[in-house]
Amino acid sequence: MTQPLLLSGRYLLTLDAAHPCIEDGALLARDGRIAAIGTRAELAARHPGVRALHTPHGLIMPGLVNTHTHAAMALFRGLADDLPLMEWLQDYIFPVEATLTADMVRVGALLSCCEMIRSGTTSFCDMYLFAEAVAQATEQSGMRAWLGEAVYDFPSPCYGEPANGVRLTRDLIARFRQHPLIHAISVAHAVYTCSPDLLVQMAELARQEDVLLALHLAENAEEDQSCRERYGSSPVQHLERLGILGPKLLAAHCVTPDAADTQLLARRGVKVAHCPQSNMKLGSGIAPIDSFLQAGICVSLGTDGSASNNTVDMFAEMNVMAKIHKARRCDPLQVTAEESLHAATLGGARALGAEAHIGSLQKGKAADCIVVDMDQPHLTPLYNPVSQLVYAARGSDVLHSMVNGRLLMQDRKVLSLDEAGIMAEARALAGHFARVAKKRQA
Amino acid sequence: MTQPLLLSGRYLLTLDAAHPCIEDGALLARDGRIAAIGTRAELAARHPGVRALHTPHGLIMPGLVNTHTHAAMALFRGLADDLPLMEWLQDYIFPVEATLTADMVRVGALLSCCEMIRSGTTSFCDMYLFAEAVAQATEQSGMRAWLGEAVYDFPSPCYGEPANGVRLTRDLIARFRQHPLIHAISVAHAVYTCSPDLLVQMAELARQEDVLLALHLAENAEEDQSCRERYGSSPVQHLERLGILGPKLLAAHCVTPDAADTQLLARRGVKVAHCPQSNMKLGSGIAPIDSFLQAGICVSLGTDGSASNNTVDMFAEMNVMAKIHKARRCDPLQVTAEESLHAATLGGARALGAEAHIGSLQKGKAADCIVVDMDQPHLTPLYNPVSQLVYAARGSDVLHSMVNGRLLMQDRKVLSLDEAGIMAEARALAGHFARVAKKRQA
Repeated sequence: MTQPLLLSGRYLLTLDAAHPCIEDGALLARDGRIAAIGTRAELAARHPGVRALHTPHGLIMPGLVNTHTHAAMALFRGLADDLPLMEWLQDYIFPVEATLTADMVRVGALLSCCEMIRSGTTSFCDMYLFAEAVAQATEQSGMRAWLGEAVYDFPSPCYGEPANGVRLTRDLIARFRQHPLIHAISVAHAVYTCSPDLLVQMAELARQEDVLLALHLAENAEEDQSCRERYGSSPVQHLERLGILGPKLLAAHCVTPDAADTQLLARRGVKVAHCPQSNMKLGSGIAPIDSFLQAGICVSLGTDGSASNNTVDMFAEMNVMAKIHKARRCDPLQVTAEESLHAATLGGARALGAEAHIGSLQKGKAADCIVVDMDQPHLTPLYNPVSQLVYAARGSDVLHSMVNGRLLMQDRKVLSLDEAGIMAEARALAGHFARVAKKRQA
Repeated sequence: MTQPLLLSGRYLLTLDAAHPCIEDGALLARDGRIAAIGTRAELAARHPGVRALHTPHGLIMPGLVNTHTHAAMALFRGLADDLPLMEWLQDYIFPVEATLTADMVRVGALLSCCEMIRSGTTSFCDMYLFAEAVAQATEQSGMRAWLGEAVYDFPSPCYGEPANGVRLTRDLIARFRQHPLIHAISVAHAVYTCSPDLLVQMAELARQEDVLLALHLAENAEEDQSCRERYGSSPVQHLERLGILGPKLLAAHCVTPDAADTQLLARRGVKVAHCPQSNMKLGSGIAPIDSFLQAGICVSLGTDGSASNNTVDMFAEMNVMAKIHKARRCDPLQVTAEESLHAATLGGARALGAEAHIGSLQKGKAADCIVVDMDQPHLTPLYNPVSQLVYAARGSDVLHSMVNGRLLMQDRKVLSLDEAGIMAEARALAGHFARVAKKRQA
């Protein structure tokens, strides 16, 4: 167990209804949890001699929760952009993914963990190949994660035939059942890559093991059209008919749902991982988040993989989330800074079924928080901390990061990982991927 | 004159057709200009003993050009967001602006200059009240600027009656005629705030003095509708009838132009300052940039003021520009990373009539450049420098900034300005503005 630590700053933004923002605030982290919250003066008096980290211009807030990542895809950042979706997938992403090994995935996930820690994310939900390697990287980083092996109808470079993917997922869940920070989940890639039978198998497994089922859902017009042609229903209705919609389903994207789909998602309590920047860059469109929020759907926020975003900076994602819906509706009241910050914190916690543990700073919750340096020109003056965090702050403004009471970054130095070594490994792998992509073009 | 300096790094991205990207590249800055470009080895051999600044993982590129700012509005960053446009203007922005003094504007412009230097902008085009104070701040910062006094039909806290605004502009142009870095321009606020007569006067003044005319144009549906009601034509057609459209007109926003307006803008050689993030946040919509580019219109990029963005980070603006049009058209081929980077560099230079001097790194052009630190997890690995700069880099990745051969920032320390002092002054003023806004609400 790490030593108790008294973290204090100019502001403590709890995101807890009872004490939204405490000036000269502090929290005491002990045994991985938040043991106390109050002013710095109060806590210092009550807990003399405790190790302290004070940041005079710092704003302490809950660590951000990224509910849709493919962390290892950091290796493909910028490999190919500005291409038609099918060319991007078939000529670049699929060929390089076919050559992946567990060790490559481990390096990519480590690179992404460095980036996530540096930009304020403390928890993430990942789906990719070689989930075991992602778990290994995550464990090394000290971050909190929900992660699973992407299962689909065709052979995987990790597990081979689909049936093996189901078994692998069951084993993974068993192995991480007692882990304090890592939760293995069930992942079905998507409606267009998984047969109804495979979707039902992965959903059944999630139910038996009482874990999340994560999938890509209703991402773009092509998916919607192909689902209607094959199954005579929208992707959302297709899952409803298969009995898969429910409160432990985390659906990424949800760009194309119509009003009937939205009502279904709301009625079944499905959680949405909104990925605005990936949806923009891939030309998928803009998810009807205003309708989702009106219908009472839990909306969380995700960056998607770095091949389609191209970073995992949740501050950038919050910023875009609070603007893109205003543009879509020509209405400056759509999706406020508060709603965007909520999606990136408590919304994410709720989407992962972890609202009791993370997403706000509250006594008894896990000590997962970040400290933002507000002493910078672009964050000056300060009228409203929430507006400043969403509309002006960047991931690079995060000074310290703590997960489960352990400092993962202090003064922008990542303590848990060897950043230079990881970047060197990633650069060495990039040569291989560039050659694979080039050979494919030849 | 500053001493010659040999600037070198891992890459030199010239944005010049002849040598797009030089590995282990360098440039020699002498007497404010680029005296030579080549590899580090070549230049070091040819110019022994010259003072050198080498950044092993640095990417040297042209400084960014922000063609639409209200720099002093940094003072209102986050004062009010997520409001209907008229409430935002009438209950917050107009009341606080009515209390502005020259000194407040100077402080606000200094704050914005700190932020611009820190995020890679070397040139900007500003329109605001108390342009003289903006010029004073800009001079102190060492940045390059085109700036003018916003003139409109109602009294200004700076110059009083509109006729004084015309005179003030004429004087300002005369005073800065010989300035090496600052160019005074003619500014008419907008079609909905300036009578046809005032618009013609400011255009006539620009023509006589051979300077730019800058204005807000076709920003949203309300402006379009009110112009059609008052004048029976769209804002663009209205300016055409007044004889104002021409190659020295820099029009900010241009969200609502239809196909006929677009043809007119193209035929007259009007330059556009695209402000995607401000247009999103205020609910104005998404400018038809794809049509503008197809029509051959010169598109540059601007952040607008920090009350509506809320930063002047041109890296964020490039990032959004390269994504928002893909979302609008559901087409990943719309507005590439190259087109976005072009708008923020050569496009901006051309929009300001300064293509011969800035916007690319070329022998004989001004030594205006920045060095980006590519040795970071979110910029690793590197397949394509342009993709990385547009889709992954942030303003905070800029290490050094140079304008006219003078280093304005080195290793993220702004050399020309007292950042701490400026932030303290801005914080003190914020109390005043918050009280004005609060009184208005009461």
